[in-house]
Amino acid sequence: MAKAPVLTPRAEDFPRWYQDLISKAELADNGPVRGTMVIRPYGYGLWERMQGEMDARIKRAGADNAYFPLFIPQSYLTREAEHVEGFAPELAVVTHGGGKELEEPVVVRPTSETIINDYFSKWVQSYRDLPLLINQWANVVRWEMRPRVFLRTSEFLWQEGHTAHATYEDARDYAAMIHREVYGDFMVNVLAVDVVLGRKTPRERFAGAINTLTLEGMMGDGKALQMGTSHELGQNFAKAFDTRYLAADGERKLVWQTSWGTSTRMVGGLIMSHGDDHGLCIPPRLAPVQAVVLAVKGDEAVLAKVREIAGRLAAAGIRVRVDDRTDTPFGRRAVDWELKGVPLRIEVGPRDLEQGTAMLVRRIPGGKEPVAIDALAATLPALLEEDQALLLRRSRDRRTALTSDVATVEEAGEAAKAGGWARIPWSVLGEAGEARLAEDGVSVRCLVAEDGSVPNSDDQPGNIAIVARAY
Amino acid sequence: MAKAPVLTPRAEDFPRWYQDLISKAELADNGPVRGTMVIRPYGYGLWERMQGEMDARIKRAGADNAYFPLFIPQSYLTREAEHVEGFAPELAVVTHGGGKELEEPVVVRPTSETIINDYFSKWVQSYRDLPLLINQWANVVRWEMRPRVFLRTSEFLWQEGHTAHATYEDARDYAAMIHREVYGDFMVNVLAVDVVLGRKTPRERFAGAINTLTLEGMMGDGKALQMGTSHELGQNFAKAFDTRYLAADGERKLVWQTSWGTSTRMVGGLIMSHGDDHGLCIPPRLAPVQAVVLAVKGDEAVLAKVREIAGRLAAAGIRVRVDDRTDTPFGRRAVDWELKGVPLRIEVGPRDLEQGTAMLVRRIPGGKEPVAIDALAATLPALLEEDQALLLRRSRDRRTALTSDVATVEEAGEAAKAGGWARIPWSVLGEAGEARLAEDGVSVRCLVAEDGSVPNSDDQPGNIAIVARAY
Repeated sequence: MAKAPVLTPRAEDFPRWYQDLISKAELADNGPVRGTMVIRPYGYGLWERMQGEMDARIKRAGADNAYFPLFIPQSYLTREAEHVEGFAPELAVVTHGGGKELEEPVVVRPTSETIINDYFSKWVQSYRDLPLLINQWANVVRWEMRPRVFLRTSEFLWQEGHTAHATYEDARDYAAMIHREVYGDFMVNVLAVDVVLGRKTPRERFAGAINTLTLEGMMGDGKALQMGTSHELGQNFAKAFDTRYLAADGERKLVWQTSWGTSTRMVGGLIMSHGDDHGLCIPPRLAPVQAVVLAVKGDEAVLAKVREIAGRLAAAGIRVRVDDRTDTPFGRRAVDWELKGVPLRIEVGPRDLEQGTAMLVRRIPGGKEPVAIDALAATLPALLEEDQALLLRRSRDRRTALTSDVATVEEAGEAAKAGGWARIPWSVLGEAGEARLAEDGVSVRCLVAEDGSVPNSDDQPGNIAIVARAY
Repeated sequence: MAKAPVLTPRAEDFPRWYQDLISKAELADNGPVRGTMVIRPYGYGLWERMQGEMDARIKRAGADNAYFPLFIPQSYLTREAEHVEGFAPELAVVTHGGGKELEEPVVVRPTSETIINDYFSKWVQSYRDLPLLINQWANVVRWEMRPRVFLRTSEFLWQEGHTAHATYEDARDYAAMIHREVYGDFMVNVLAVDVVLGRKTPRERFAGAINTLTLEGMMGDGKALQMGTSHELGQNFAKAFDTRYLAADGERKLVWQTSWGTSTRMVGGLIMSHGDDHGLCIPPRLAPVQAVVLAVKGDEAVLAKVREIAGRLAAAGIRVRVDDRTDTPFGRRAVDWELKGVPLRIEVGPRDLEQGTAMLVRRIPGGKEPVAIDALAATLPALLEEDQALLLRRSRDRRTALTSDVATVEEAGEAAKAGGWARIPWSVLGEAGEARLAEDGVSVRCLVAEDGSVPNSDDQPGNIAIVARAY
């Protein structure tokens, strides 16, 4: 008789599978205030690894980390008209501080363009101060009516980059470089999500931007997730905050700006990209724990061998953890590591010891086989790279299988509602078609050029719209 | 003729020197909302290094990072009577979210004992789940009437550890271990601040704790700064949130808890411990930039050599930066690096090249001398360790010189007001004497045992009170 499944099967109820997994793999809990979340140690460990990988790329892109205040005077947001219109409905407002009503209410930052421009306008004097490249790791608040853990939460963690440049071209190129070399590289090569890089339509642009670049991933149910965005802000905020520099020609010119962000939403994307009915699958390059060494039983020889193996794997550069909780049944622990998606499990019992072998269980391709203990440290790194490539291939194959080229707005809507992506010429769809799809909860995720590259403008001939339901 | 000093001299006006330094070394700015701060890249770089060193120690202490929400229901704070009394005057309150007035206002976390206990009470089932060791890196808000950058700000960044244990002894020992092996080790061996480890008097305890351990540093003006605290919470929060575990004997028992925190206040402590009239002095083990290689002039041979030297130093494990901003006068750049307290400056000009030497300028002991370029990578690591030791010795010498043993409450008050620390038997001072000193703005920083160790109780015979003015 088959055992009862640990999780609701994906095919039965994908959203419920997602909630089950988050709870059973101990990734996060709902917070007491509506829409907030508690990120538990294993979930936070995934975020810490994302931070580490992203931070290194952001620093290589020349940006320095800094920190701006959580509280923004309400008046700042109103200075850029589209920006305030976009964010006003989502704001949390502090009206009392230190036991008294405040003279001016302050908002909890939903994003930091306004407060950062206030300082850029002081720090930037001459062309020598440009480009000014800043990144911030922080929490932000956007009041959320339909919260879902990691995907839409009233408070989330993110990084937000903010830069100022002397010319339009320099800002444009920097936004594109972050999009491709920081975000694209991280998502494809570390998260193993085969994201599409494209350009948002005017309707989907960030409030205050002249161009928004996006990375869209296809989830296990065929829906899309926006995994990160990089914006050209033009001179909109520079005008609002009078952010100017003294040019070499002696004129005081407005700067050109970018902003770009990725958040804990990526944890949701990771789960929905790679998870299966048994739990998570963590790409090895991201995994906080790449291999777990389990003691099947608590006898001394086994425990000593488990620690010895872990030491050798750690010395080989593998992120390894020992599981010696032998007062918990072995089967329960094995299921738990499967749920948590650790790529490799090395199980050591008394009988294995006699033979100098351990049982190697691979989460991502599946399957188990005995391996000589002395060979583990030399064998495992290649298996981890194999698993990394397999996850990316699966992501790519799913996108290929579930994407269709269509010729009419109706077909695009049908394909999206059936759980897939549709590609339709933007010249056929247009803003009118986009508005019609929106009535059915279907959106244009992005525009891509015929050759798959990111278009330089909305109306570049040959632009293709990718249409889908999205989280 | 002497040049005008870059900073207000410390002897003239210490608080103004502090503000000058923070501004001119580009560490931080005041935020637009009263009491908030903008941490600029160089200041944030110091904090990032503190985080990295502390985080490694916290993980070695067995704690895992997690993240709890910024917003706490107001009702949570009232569950622990002393806690709410301590924090109520400092709370920021959100009354509106998503365009509507909230049914229950939420407070912005001033600390997270309450919300964390709400989850501990769900996560802890049996003795097998203990100890539960959690740390969080986050921002917190405590409305501040007399703000001072890094020292007292309405929002600050910190880490807060929260743990639950099966027994009183285990919790007590863990709080003491964090105090000594995480905080003490970091502050003495990385920050080079010769902190005193002691125990707070009941008057100075954290709101809700049964014991608060503290680390007190002496600043350049002889005042004290509380640089970190580790609390035994007893069962106060466990009772308020019914945080219980199933013991091996089948009984459901309340857990014993600790909490412990350090914050961006340590950046203020670093500045006031080691800064001088020329600027900061950063201990090499902390310094984000340990050595800067300056091109005196912009000719190609110099620039090539500067990059070559930097590459060799980086390969030797030194955190190095190139300064090739040769369109800014050399003198201004040299003053800037002095202000920023980078331990070693390597100046390379055309004449040096001919001789195969560079000018080595040492910020901490002072002085400059030519050094063979080929010898730099081999020489510098030892100089950095010398400088590290020198800063700690200066910190120790200052504390010794400015601390006096006194026999009466009056003498203790006089010594503190004169800008130093007084040691007085706690049996002489007592809570009545402590209250009298408080009228003059003088406090008991901590109690220490006769042999310098941390006392196990307030009234342990021989306890000595350390009395000072404090930030």
